[in-house]
Amino acid sequence: MIDCGEGTQRQMLASKVKISRLNNIFISHLHGDHCFGLIGLISTLGMFNRTADLYIHSHPSLQGILEPLISTFCNDLTYKVCFEPFSPANSEVIYEDRSLTVASIPLKHKLPTSGFLFSEKERERNIIREKIDFYKIPLSSIPLIKQGADFVTEDGLVVPNAHLTLNPVPPKKYAYCSDTMYIERILPFIDSVDCLYHESTYLHEDLSKAKSTMHSTALQAATLASKANVKQLLLGHFSARYDDFQPFLEEAKSIFPNTHLCQDGDRIEF
Amino acid sequence: MIDCGEGTQRQMLASKVKISRLNNIFISHLHGDHCFGLIGLISTLGMFNRTADLYIHSHPSLQGILEPLISTFCNDLTYKVCFEPFSPANSEVIYEDRSLTVASIPLKHKLPTSGFLFSEKERERNIIREKIDFYKIPLSSIPLIKQGADFVTEDGLVVPNAHLTLNPVPPKKYAYCSDTMYIERILPFIDSVDCLYHESTYLHEDLSKAKSTMHSTALQAATLASKANVKQLLLGHFSARYDDFQPFLEEAKSIFPNTHLCQDGDRIEF
Repeated sequence: MIDCGEGTQRQMLASKVKISRLNNIFISHLHGDHCFGLIGLISTLGMFNRTADLYIHSHPSLQGILEPLISTFCNDLTYKVCFEPFSPANSEVIYEDRSLTVASIPLKHKLPTSGFLFSEKERERNIIREKIDFYKIPLSSIPLIKQGADFVTEDGLVVPNAHLTLNPVPPKKYAYCSDTMYIERILPFIDSVDCLYHESTYLHEDLSKAKSTMHSTALQAATLASKANVKQLLLGHFSARYDDFQPFLEEAKSIFPNTHLCQDGDRIEF
Repeated sequence: MIDCGEGTQRQMLASKVKISRLNNIFISHLHGDHCFGLIGLISTLGMFNRTADLYIHSHPSLQGILEPLISTFCNDLTYKVCFEPFSPANSEVIYEDRSLTVASIPLKHKLPTSGFLFSEKERERNIIREKIDFYKIPLSSIPLIKQGADFVTEDGLVVPNAHLTLNPVPPKKYAYCSDTMYIERILPFIDSVDCLYHESTYLHEDLSKAKSTMHSTALQAATLASKANVKQLLLGHFSARYDDFQPFLEEAKSIFPNTHLCQDGDRIEF
């Protein structure tokens, strides 16, 4: 989960996301609309008798804020909340498992803020079932072939890997750029990602407001999407001063056509 | 406002309650579902450039919990949050203005918990317009007559107050009994109130569960309503273990017919 504003647990419930499958929460920055839901979520997870550790990746100061609340309100938690602090000043890999890495993206906002780049790892090559039978490939050789190795038969014949396997599904990348002003230095991090979420708090006609609050406009988000050659752009974090968000879409599409406005409960596949 | 669980500000927005009219918040006890929404609400009130003080009436320990959050997340608040601590162990008047008093009601739950009795003050008597003209009552005598005084004419004739005024609308009383097990010692506090909210976390078939968690059943709430001779009973705080709340209503109505089940966003007039 990325960020956890007030009411997140209620939204999860409404969207039928399995709350028990949540193991890692990435907090972009310590403004209330990005973290006020943590204590309620932590508390509720305890009521389901969770035992798995819950990891919270955030600016180091969150721990000092949240721990007193946990000890006051959740003194009988059945699981452990583990703080995984990182500095939003630099990009670093802050999470890794066998299929995924998550790296921080330094953003620029009123206080230290980080975006996140989710990168799937290269998958193993898909071995062609019939070739196993044809070349009598022993089970023990399969892992290496899946990693790209050629196969040498008992007769010494070298069968090139390309003849035995198919390309795996290409790994996907998702970049989430939370509250930030327009900064081009994030371009290397978001380059060619399959999906980019970028905040667009304002329309470009309110650029001065965007600058003074250190937020972005829809046009700026689309400009970054275009310069970084991403495949799809998601816009969100619209200011409550606007009643109608359609102009955000039109503004962004004028520069980057494959843009989508995020609404509560949306599911995006890419 | 009584209690402030997570998402309260969102619910206020949805129910079109004017958030700026909120001046006093009464917190029954320090479980998360009764106070996790405070920090978000306080933060949002600041965004509307509020200047009026906000009073929070609660167990003394809330101040030590909330103040660090306020100074971390709301360091540029345009208004003051004033803590008004009280001890839930005894009943005391914790708020008073010209039309209303609020007294605490000691409840019994897992940690110190208080209900609240809202009592309208006796209104002034309604003076009959025609009598002012008929007896030539000077403006200066009217306030005393509204308080029940007789009027003496220039000729020395005593006109009894009952002849000059009508009874005012009787003052109303509302009692809110938050999380609590069944305790008859609250009867004097809720006696004959116009409206009683009493928690009913469980159905009476789950009485043992109610006892172990120090909550009440619908039957118990109705029993108190009946014994206290209240005019109307509101039930709420139903356990998430139940899918259907209709049995709560049936159970309570078997003892106290004028019962209503509270749902999100309900408005009750009495």
